[in-house]
Amino acid sequence: MMKTLLVSLLLAVAMTLSAQDRSVSGGERSVLSVRASQYPRISADHRASFKVKAPHAKSVQIDLGKKYDMVRDENGEWTCTTEPLGPGFHYYFLVIDGVPVADPASESFYGCSMMTSGIEIPYPEGDTRFSLADVPHGEIRMKRYFSKTANAWRRMFVYTPPCYEKSSVSYPVLYLQHGGGEDERGWSQQGLTDIILDNLIARGEAVPMIIVMLDGNTKDFNSELFNDCIPFVEKTYRVKAGKDSRALAGLSMGGIQTLNACITHPECFSYIGVFSSGWWVQSRHGMPAHETEKYYEKLKAHKDEFNKGFKQFWFSMGGKEDIAYQNCQAMLKRFDEIGIRYTYFETPGGHTWPVWRESLYRFAPLLFK
Amino acid sequence: MMKTLLVSLLLAVAMTLSAQDRSVSGGERSVLSVRASQYPRISADHRASFKVKAPHAKSVQIDLGKKYDMVRDENGEWTCTTEPLGPGFHYYFLVIDGVPVADPASESFYGCSMMTSGIEIPYPEGDTRFSLADVPHGEIRMKRYFSKTANAWRRMFVYTPPCYEKSSVSYPVLYLQHGGGEDERGWSQQGLTDIILDNLIARGEAVPMIIVMLDGNTKDFNSELFNDCIPFVEKTYRVKAGKDSRALAGLSMGGIQTLNACITHPECFSYIGVFSSGWWVQSRHGMPAHETEKYYEKLKAHKDEFNKGFKQFWFSMGGKEDIAYQNCQAMLKRFDEIGIRYTYFETPGGHTWPVWRESLYRFAPLLFK
Repeated sequence: MMKTLLVSLLLAVAMTLSAQDRSVSGGERSVLSVRASQYPRISADHRASFKVKAPHAKSVQIDLGKKYDMVRDENGEWTCTTEPLGPGFHYYFLVIDGVPVADPASESFYGCSMMTSGIEIPYPEGDTRFSLADVPHGEIRMKRYFSKTANAWRRMFVYTPPCYEKSSVSYPVLYLQHGGGEDERGWSQQGLTDIILDNLIARGEAVPMIIVMLDGNTKDFNSELFNDCIPFVEKTYRVKAGKDSRALAGLSMGGIQTLNACITHPECFSYIGVFSSGWWVQSRHGMPAHETEKYYEKLKAHKDEFNKGFKQFWFSMGGKEDIAYQNCQAMLKRFDEIGIRYTYFETPGGHTWPVWRESLYRFAPLLFK
Repeated sequence: MMKTLLVSLLLAVAMTLSAQDRSVSGGERSVLSVRASQYPRISADHRASFKVKAPHAKSVQIDLGKKYDMVRDENGEWTCTTEPLGPGFHYYFLVIDGVPVADPASESFYGCSMMTSGIEIPYPEGDTRFSLADVPHGEIRMKRYFSKTANAWRRMFVYTPPCYEKSSVSYPVLYLQHGGGEDERGWSQQGLTDIILDNLIARGEAVPMIIVMLDGNTKDFNSELFNDCIPFVEKTYRVKAGKDSRALAGLSMGGIQTLNACITHPECFSYIGVFSSGWWVQSRHGMPAHETEKYYEKLKAHKDEFNKGFKQFWFSMGGKEDIAYQNCQAMLKRFDEIGIRYTYFETPGGHTWPVWRESLYRFAPLLFK
């Protein structure tokens, strides 16, 4: 018998019931703190405080991009408080004697190619775009499918809008891809896809749509998308088929997958979104630069068809501090030279989920209208 | 910019593509290992091997109930191999200088009231009950609802059977509760609810049903269930209403919630499942023993109605090593004295998920027939 589990069984109810009542000075529990934990906490000015019991550790840190050294008290509890953090979701690690791990006191997420932690900093008062609200809610569905491309069972996550369950009509589909080191869970968990769309649909700002979130960790994304996923989705759900009812978007690595898919299959999508991404200027990721040159040549040769065929060719960037900034600018400069039309949106925040949530919030209302 | 995130972005694709190819001696990667990791590994005789890089740690252990000391090599990598483990899911912790955390190389689960790790040991060859198979697959849906009981938005996870999406008929519902220190994710993630039911339905052993998995961490489970969840589910999904189309089951803490709900509301359910649980002999968990005595009195006073009303009153236990064994036996002895009929099933394994998966596998075929 696992001692921790036994203790947990005996204490879980009591801890749950007392968690909200126990007085801990300074701020509010993070919405991502696990039930029994009073930490992480977030102050009114958006500083995050962390605590971990580690009497035998020599050093403990919080890594939020910037590393914060935690300070030990006489009971072996380590604490630290950060400087004010920007609103939205941020990955972080607890670093125990040099080993980065997820903080067991907070929810875990698959990011950075491992299980890591996330903290959610409140948005400014009045900015309810990313808040769970009293509006009709859709669903996030986990659906298994067999991928011939991967020769394996895989999962997709599918957002269905609030009206889907009770209606018999068909809906357009946005295929929405995560970034490198993430997977098919990224957009629903870190990205709050369902909350963003529920809010947009309730306000009449976006049309009801299905959003399909795939696992982009594959050697041949085009084959996965076109041979496996789109046929499966159109067979399984009440989906409007055809170019004008399909959108494709992705962030970072998913943005490159989006670009490659829409240039090679422009007949498939009318709406394209590329968040914090851009073709690499030099060869990388098994994508030799000469492949990219082929795409530029294709864009040049079929400029008018592309300009007419894409009702949205939409790019967002997390400001100059976004690691994809230079690649994106170089690519858009090539588009300008060729005469490819696009929309560019920039918001500060770097290569982070707050930027990608805002990108989805701005992109979704442009679709299927 | 978060350095780890940047490195991750640059390396994620390369790591993904090479993960399956890289040669590491000994066993197979655990199915729960994250994409970029070759560990944990599982040998042919079901020993698990773990590895973590921690050059500055003084001690590193794996806690699987039994603690295994890891051994450091000259590069600061720590490894250990366990004795053979039983098939199915087991919680474990990585313990770094005394701090139990989730292993970032493996998937995380909410259990033991914190984010922890799980390892999946293969079932014996030929035992395909819990294996993802080439059969029609249902879905696990995450649905948000407003709980008046909790005065908060909460989540339920809902299994819909393979035939649900394309049909217009209504289905019976099993409400299925997790244990202490877990939450509404437990049954779908640790428990493999969808795989178990997909297999049973494909073999014609269980009728298609909806399974609703609630968050049992609440001060008043009865109110949550009867005032919030059942009305919401019956309004939202194509559900057969009425006693004969409703089942309630739970494990450990969820088993006690199940007992309390079905004794106080016998008119609501025809099928009851209690896995690894039993009323406490002494007062505990805000459940004074005199409350339990009231339930025994009610059972005694209405013995015939209970015996007639419950088409299944089904108890399972993970053998004598199950921490709930004594409570359960004491309760069943009282049932015998009163003359309450029930079915009792015992399988070795203790108070663990392999026992609860098997419990669901045996209980579901008894429902709605």
